[in-house]
Amino acid sequence: MRTFRIAMVQMNPTVGDLDGNVRRITAWLREAKKAKADLVAFPELAITGYPPEDLLLKPRFVADNRRALQKIVRHCRGLAAVVGYVSLSDGIDPKPARPSVVSAGACELYNAAAVIADQKLITTYCKWYLPNYGVFDESRYFHPGRRLPLIRLRGTVVGVNICEDVWLPEGPTRFQAAAGAEIIVNISASPFHLGKSRVREQMLATRARENGVVLTYTNVVGGQDELVFDGNSVILDHQGEVIARGKAFEEDLIVADLNMESVARARRTGRKNLLPRLVASAVKVYTVSLPAVQKTRVRAVPDVTAVLDQLEEVYRALTLGVRDYVRKNGFTRVVIGLSGGVDSALTAVLAVDALGAENVWGLFMPSPYTSRDSHEDVAELGARLAISVRTIPITTMFDTYRHALAETFAGRAPDTTEENLQARIRGNLLMAFSNKFGHLVLTTGNKSEMSVGYATLYGDMAGGFAVIKDVPKTMVYDLARLRNLRGTTPVIPKRTLDRPPTAELRPNQKDEDSLPPYEILDPILQAYVEEDRSLEEIVEAGYDRTTVTRVMTMVDGSEYKRRQAPIGIKITQRALGKDRRMPITNGYRNS
Amino acid sequence: MRTFRIAMVQMNPTVGDLDGNVRRITAWLREAKKAKADLVAFPELAITGYPPEDLLLKPRFVADNRRALQKIVRHCRGLAAVVGYVSLSDGIDPKPARPSVVSAGACELYNAAAVIADQKLITTYCKWYLPNYGVFDESRYFHPGRRLPLIRLRGTVVGVNICEDVWLPEGPTRFQAAAGAEIIVNISASPFHLGKSRVREQMLATRARENGVVLTYTNVVGGQDELVFDGNSVILDHQGEVIARGKAFEEDLIVADLNMESVARARRTGRKNLLPRLVASAVKVYTVSLPAVQKTRVRAVPDVTAVLDQLEEVYRALTLGVRDYVRKNGFTRVVIGLSGGVDSALTAVLAVDALGAENVWGLFMPSPYTSRDSHEDVAELGARLAISVRTIPITTMFDTYRHALAETFAGRAPDTTEENLQARIRGNLLMAFSNKFGHLVLTTGNKSEMSVGYATLYGDMAGGFAVIKDVPKTMVYDLARLRNLRGTTPVIPKRTLDRPPTAELRPNQKDEDSLPPYEILDPILQAYVEEDRSLEEIVEAGYDRTTVTRVMTMVDGSEYKRRQAPIGIKITQRALGKDRRMPITNGYRNS
Repeated sequence: MRTFRIAMVQMNPTVGDLDGNVRRITAWLREAKKAKADLVAFPELAITGYPPEDLLLKPRFVADNRRALQKIVRHCRGLAAVVGYVSLSDGIDPKPARPSVVSAGACELYNAAAVIADQKLITTYCKWYLPNYGVFDESRYFHPGRRLPLIRLRGTVVGVNICEDVWLPEGPTRFQAAAGAEIIVNISASPFHLGKSRVREQMLATRARENGVVLTYTNVVGGQDELVFDGNSVILDHQGEVIARGKAFEEDLIVADLNMESVARARRTGRKNLLPRLVASAVKVYTVSLPAVQKTRVRAVPDVTAVLDQLEEVYRALTLGVRDYVRKNGFTRVVIGLSGGVDSALTAVLAVDALGAENVWGLFMPSPYTSRDSHEDVAELGARLAISVRTIPITTMFDTYRHALAETFAGRAPDTTEENLQARIRGNLLMAFSNKFGHLVLTTGNKSEMSVGYATLYGDMAGGFAVIKDVPKTMVYDLARLRNLRGTTPVIPKRTLDRPPTAELRPNQKDEDSLPPYEILDPILQAYVEEDRSLEEIVEAGYDRTTVTRVMTMVDGSEYKRRQAPIGIKITQRALGKDRRMPITNGYRNS
Repeated sequence: MRTFRIAMVQMNPTVGDLDGNVRRITAWLREAKKAKADLVAFPELAITGYPPEDLLLKPRFVADNRRALQKIVRHCRGLAAVVGYVSLSDGIDPKPARPSVVSAGACELYNAAAVIADQKLITTYCKWYLPNYGVFDESRYFHPGRRLPLIRLRGTVVGVNICEDVWLPEGPTRFQAAAGAEIIVNISASPFHLGKSRVREQMLATRARENGVVLTYTNVVGGQDELVFDGNSVILDHQGEVIARGKAFEEDLIVADLNMESVARARRTGRKNLLPRLVASAVKVYTVSLPAVQKTRVRAVPDVTAVLDQLEEVYRALTLGVRDYVRKNGFTRVVIGLSGGVDSALTAVLAVDALGAENVWGLFMPSPYTSRDSHEDVAELGARLAISVRTIPITTMFDTYRHALAETFAGRAPDTTEENLQARIRGNLLMAFSNKFGHLVLTTGNKSEMSVGYATLYGDMAGGFAVIKDVPKTMVYDLARLRNLRGTTPVIPKRTLDRPPTAELRPNQKDEDSLPPYEILDPILQAYVEEDRSLEEIVEAGYDRTTVTRVMTMVDGSEYKRRQAPIGIKITQRALGKDRRMPITNGYRNS
């Protein structure tokens, strides 16, 4: 029987760390060889990490990436590999030029997949469809490819394409299948957002079925600034059935034996794909021979890892996002301002799950407006998480500021100025901790607050990484409750979840003094911020016109704050990061 | 003699302010009618302002922009007009749909020029070449146009194209000329950077000459977030000679009578442009009739405004950038932390030039490390500028922080932690002023500091707008000296310009304790940050390897600070704003 053993390396590269990524790739290559894979696929831009952003404008960086590929080629003895890198041409990349020869801006770049077999670079496929929406800026850097190389290997024809290419029905997958490909190796860097893994897998199943090909989808895993890649790599047979699935949110090697005779049989009886004449000229078949390998079938039916619940996926994404941001940026420990509220509690729990309790410090900075409940709940949380919590009251500092400003502010009533002073004293103390001990400050603001600007710039917004910045307040509670189900004792005190949210910056303050209830606010924000709905549309959906107008005005008026906010982990379709690019100076008033 | 009277409105729209922009356009239309213009051109996206960024993703915004165009059409009685707007199709825009019919993401958008004549929308031209590099993200929003409409008007054939289209020799200008256009009306939104106005005008002269057409170039003027549009609109004859030039950095109406017979004569004798067959099908000529107008030739030879000196251009760009950011965001007054150094002095002078002395407040916040010189120089600057300066010493606040942190920091030597504490107390006081009085805080950091991270996040970086963020320190001195030449008394005290730069955050501190001299640092930064040069290239250019390595490491390690910095005015080829998109998590080490 004709079989083909395919391996996928769902790896976690670090953007820019070419040497580290090469070490990681070659280590996985050894594993793939041990598993006697015929072909092993690595993700999109595995050598540079994804997205490399403006590193791509540095000619030296591109040259170094090509040298890195040469090293990897030498490690591919006895098997074929598909590796994502940056190519200087839509074809076989010319020999690495001397760096001094490469001049800035002079070169065309391609988002490419090197096809390597037995220590030879056979060809490259260059991505046709460059996403330039949402968080993606690929047209900023890359030219689209126009070629369709196929590889004939141990009697099986393989087509390679990249990420976005497989999302289009009338794209490379269709053409490669029509030109004879039996397996499509798609390499990808597809970031997580709520619900995406399911949509993606359904799309892949459709694509495999409609083209009658085995489809292997190799995704990146890991955190990179605001993005988290969820892995969830998958192999689907020619009927769209999942035959192997990689782990979610972890590195993984997936190996499967494919029965190519059943694919070929189905193709003979199935409908013929037609190859458009213009595309036919783009096709070239490379026949590759590999040394014979003695194989026993390791896994007749490969494991199919279960799909996670959606809320669990978010929790895992946040944990991985924190861990990778902290570690990839060379930090070990984090410090978090604890208030007794649910946002800081959830942030602390996520940090402990990501980094271990010994690496998480809490700082509690009470004022006279801080309730007894908050004192107790912070102590309780710290004890349950077994983290160090230090208390520094801010009252004397607050007094010296008020004294220093008394003359200037004479005759003016206290207002948000005094509230912000307190928040900024806390920000200053947290940053002093960070500066003195080298801990990264994690901020604790949620998406609801960040959207309406209910946060103090340089105050509670001060820090390096905003863990739950894209989590609406109502989902903060859901995640806290989900986490409390683990183990025997809930880690977050019940009262933290039950009492009304408050900033405690003046006596008896409640969030609902300034904001609509979160059950109302969150759906309005989703409609306005994530779905670009107009006032009329949101009112038609059943929300109060005055409330909606007020929320929109708050969102529009706090763009300057968000622009200076630390980055945070994207978990929704549209986060408040590089997938939302609003002008600060903006005269548009919603109507 | 066949003449054609062309008018260009070099206008200052506000992004998103559709109603305001329509009012501005209709007011200028009245002026153009008074001047008896045959055709008046408004800039690229005049209706929405440029760049509208993600406002374009709101279907309601696009619908409102189309309704705004209909209003303008009604005002074009008796003349023709070219107006930039967002179209939903590459052709005549269909009637404005009811907002509820437009669904998010469902529509294709085009960066379009409406051609209006005598209250009728004749056709639209849609931009062919969408810039998606540097500060530009047009591929994020727009589809490229494929049509080449020409307008025959009073016996003259006019071709319209948009901004980037005219930069390409083998682009729409070539094809329109080949199809018979005698005048090319290019409408543009081309942001300022050092030296660009000259390069642009040379390019335009080449384009006019090589195609034997009159070229009119209508640019936006004004500030929009980090961009300043310099105006410098220009009309060039078919030999590439400038026959009229708009003012720099001001709104302007430019009117010129064009002798079309000399153009036609030259075209008959000159070489024939060939129209590629594929392009020919894109051409369509619209013949338009306008009511007869009795004209006297107003200006036989229109004025040609002089070109400004480069440093003067930067000064004007900064002034306009501040004024427009402050006013378009609804502020009247600004507050600036004055230190006695040249950066805060220049920022204050720019603010006074932009907004008037009565709208600029200084805040002086001395510590025990503040020198007597600084006390005196701040007082002197305040007096010369006639601005209010208030003094609030930070010593007691600094002491209470140190006291509060004493136990936690026990046994650890003072370091940058204590320096940052001081800077952040100042940031907190400035923001308290801003919160209490509604003044916008202008920050004072220069590009050299911001590049190497020699600044305190939430400290001296706290504020809404960073005026000289893109000005290297050596140019800060040049600009200060330039400004001191105006009037009878120099506004910036001589000692501020003469004494060595210092942050005064510890005894006898000098910038050169931490940084290379600015005469060395600035060219290294230009090579690394603006030109993407590698270590080897910079060393080959004559700089010390250790110094260059240290500078690169500082730049790479402070990306997280820049990400949280306020926006500031772009004046170089690559500012530290949206034209530099580096990952924070970045393992690339320069070699």
